[in-house]
Amino acid sequence: MDTNEKMIHPDNIKLSADENAVVIIDQTQLPGRLAFLTLSERQDCFDAIKKLQVRGAPAIGIFAGYAMYILAKQWKDLPYEAFLENVRELGSYLVSSRPTAVNLSWAVQRLIDAAGADPEMPVGDIVLRMGAEAKAIHNEDMEMCLKIAEHGLSLCKEGEGILTHCNAGPLATSRYGTALGPVMLGKERGMNLRVYADETRPLLHGARLTAYELCQAGVDVTLICDNMASVVMKNGWVDKVFVGCDRIAANGDTANKIGTSGVAILAGYYHIPFYVLGPTSTIDFDTPAGKDIVIEQRDPDEIRTMWYEKPMAPPDVKCYNPSFDITDHSLIAGIITEKGIIRPPFEENLLKLK
Amino acid sequence: MDTNEKMIHPDNIKLSADENAVVIIDQTQLPGRLAFLTLSERQDCFDAIKKLQVRGAPAIGIFAGYAMYILAKQWKDLPYEAFLENVRELGSYLVSSRPTAVNLSWAVQRLIDAAGADPEMPVGDIVLRMGAEAKAIHNEDMEMCLKIAEHGLSLCKEGEGILTHCNAGPLATSRYGTALGPVMLGKERGMNLRVYADETRPLLHGARLTAYELCQAGVDVTLICDNMASVVMKNGWVDKVFVGCDRIAANGDTANKIGTSGVAILAGYYHIPFYVLGPTSTIDFDTPAGKDIVIEQRDPDEIRTMWYEKPMAPPDVKCYNPSFDITDHSLIAGIITEKGIIRPPFEENLLKLK
Repeated sequence: MDTNEKMIHPDNIKLSADENAVVIIDQTQLPGRLAFLTLSERQDCFDAIKKLQVRGAPAIGIFAGYAMYILAKQWKDLPYEAFLENVRELGSYLVSSRPTAVNLSWAVQRLIDAAGADPEMPVGDIVLRMGAEAKAIHNEDMEMCLKIAEHGLSLCKEGEGILTHCNAGPLATSRYGTALGPVMLGKERGMNLRVYADETRPLLHGARLTAYELCQAGVDVTLICDNMASVVMKNGWVDKVFVGCDRIAANGDTANKIGTSGVAILAGYYHIPFYVLGPTSTIDFDTPAGKDIVIEQRDPDEIRTMWYEKPMAPPDVKCYNPSFDITDHSLIAGIITEKGIIRPPFEENLLKLK
Repeated sequence: MDTNEKMIHPDNIKLSADENAVVIIDQTQLPGRLAFLTLSERQDCFDAIKKLQVRGAPAIGIFAGYAMYILAKQWKDLPYEAFLENVRELGSYLVSSRPTAVNLSWAVQRLIDAAGADPEMPVGDIVLRMGAEAKAIHNEDMEMCLKIAEHGLSLCKEGEGILTHCNAGPLATSRYGTALGPVMLGKERGMNLRVYADETRPLLHGARLTAYELCQAGVDVTLICDNMASVVMKNGWVDKVFVGCDRIAANGDTANKIGTSGVAILAGYYHIPFYVLGPTSTIDFDTPAGKDIVIEQRDPDEIRTMWYEKPMAPPDVKCYNPSFDITDHSLIAGIITEKGIIRPPFEENLLKLK
């Protein structure tokens, strides 16, 4: 029995019993309320990604796989060509919900490939094959998270302090999480790491999700505002930085939640090693460098007015609200994947994973 | 006529007409509501500083001067010795509301000195002298802000981008502000600078006050979350960083709003000059270095729950909430005071101001 399953929520994404819907924890309601959403319409699935009800690159991939499956199932009586066209169109539609997350297009493509693998197969059987593919993505992710956690934990010593930004824990993935994996796995094995969690404005995924998951798991966690990372590092409380990733370019440049690049620069200044944790599916060999990654801009009202009774800024003030930033590969001590810890030079060493 | 007076609120701190109370803009209500507080009780004056209804190092000094005066006035019929003892005790009390702000103890000391300058003087006349001293502090601050703005503006070119953290504008001082002084004075003279305002968690003084003041003044301002400073700098949009200061140690190490040290490190990484703007009264020659400055810790609920309908973090999560941090002097390109721009080596060059 997995003790971690008692502490955290393993069922953040699952199929309904009849496999006609995807059931997810609505991450926008945490930590105030643990609410589940049952999704079976394409618009709802799109919105779940867009509105961050499901978020975290691996979790989005798992969700998209299941969504492709249950939505394709609705076309199981169509002729093959029409079915495949619908599946492809659905894939493009879902991918457009969050263009930066490479796991999303990667998972969607796996489902499209499964749908198109054998034109001779009856469409009903193709749908079953798509279901198997979606479940495989989920199972592989659980395996991957465990391996990432193992590799990350090999770097840690009892009592060390880990700073993390945003949320790359169980909710963002399928079990241990990526950036939080070493901490969660360590806890399971009786090792205590101290975590400093950046609250991660504007949507506060660190405060709402990381702090929540770590509290649930009984980990020693201290919540800080993003701008306190410098002083926490200066105090000597941080031995390592662990962050997740949304896309890794071929040269190691990493797109992750806005603010990650700042944390990496601070870590560099204070001589604290900065690690990126994520599955190899996050590496996009077609993207040579970070400058080639398109960064989505989000609603200025996330900064100006969200969760407010009284306004937090003048209602008409201009805002700049990029969802991600790019951490230069020169600031990264290692990329911790399910296949091991990749060290610089990344351009060379990442290729070996291909 | 001062056109800036139309754009901003010059009367952020003033005496009531009968000089029995201090009237301030309640900065905790901005930008939603422009509300004034009339304060004539010692507890209310203490709370106004503690609760940040009045904030910004120079503004606190001005306020404390007036508060000492109107509260001392209530003892105008006491014998000299009892009067002076009360004034001294009042001073200690007010200073304890925000121990890091050197202008507070500096202004309080000026009022105590005025009270104790001539034991032969009737107490009623001493009170008048204290009133004159408080008004002098206010007038000197207006002069100082103008000079700081002039010196800062001499570094700026039309169209340049300035990043600022927290609020060191008119509300924090007495007219132009310190860090915002060059921008405000430039605007008055037809020069357009673009400002990037860090929202400045947890109390959002950047979002609530800096963005408000700059919008009011018609300045091109873009509000960002603190963790976006890195990408804004990387985009090449920032030519200079201007911040205020709460205390400057003899070696140039500067205490300012939490997050300032992180901004300075980022600016250093991106080769953007980082300037501290403040009156010479902020320099504390009795404090050799930043490590000697006591940093106040604030209520964790500022991070966990403020302004919330739904909780933003688990209610029992541990938080670290220092009010200030120390920016190492090695990261500072210049300290812009009313007496000119002080360049490194600060240990040597600050002494020349003494």
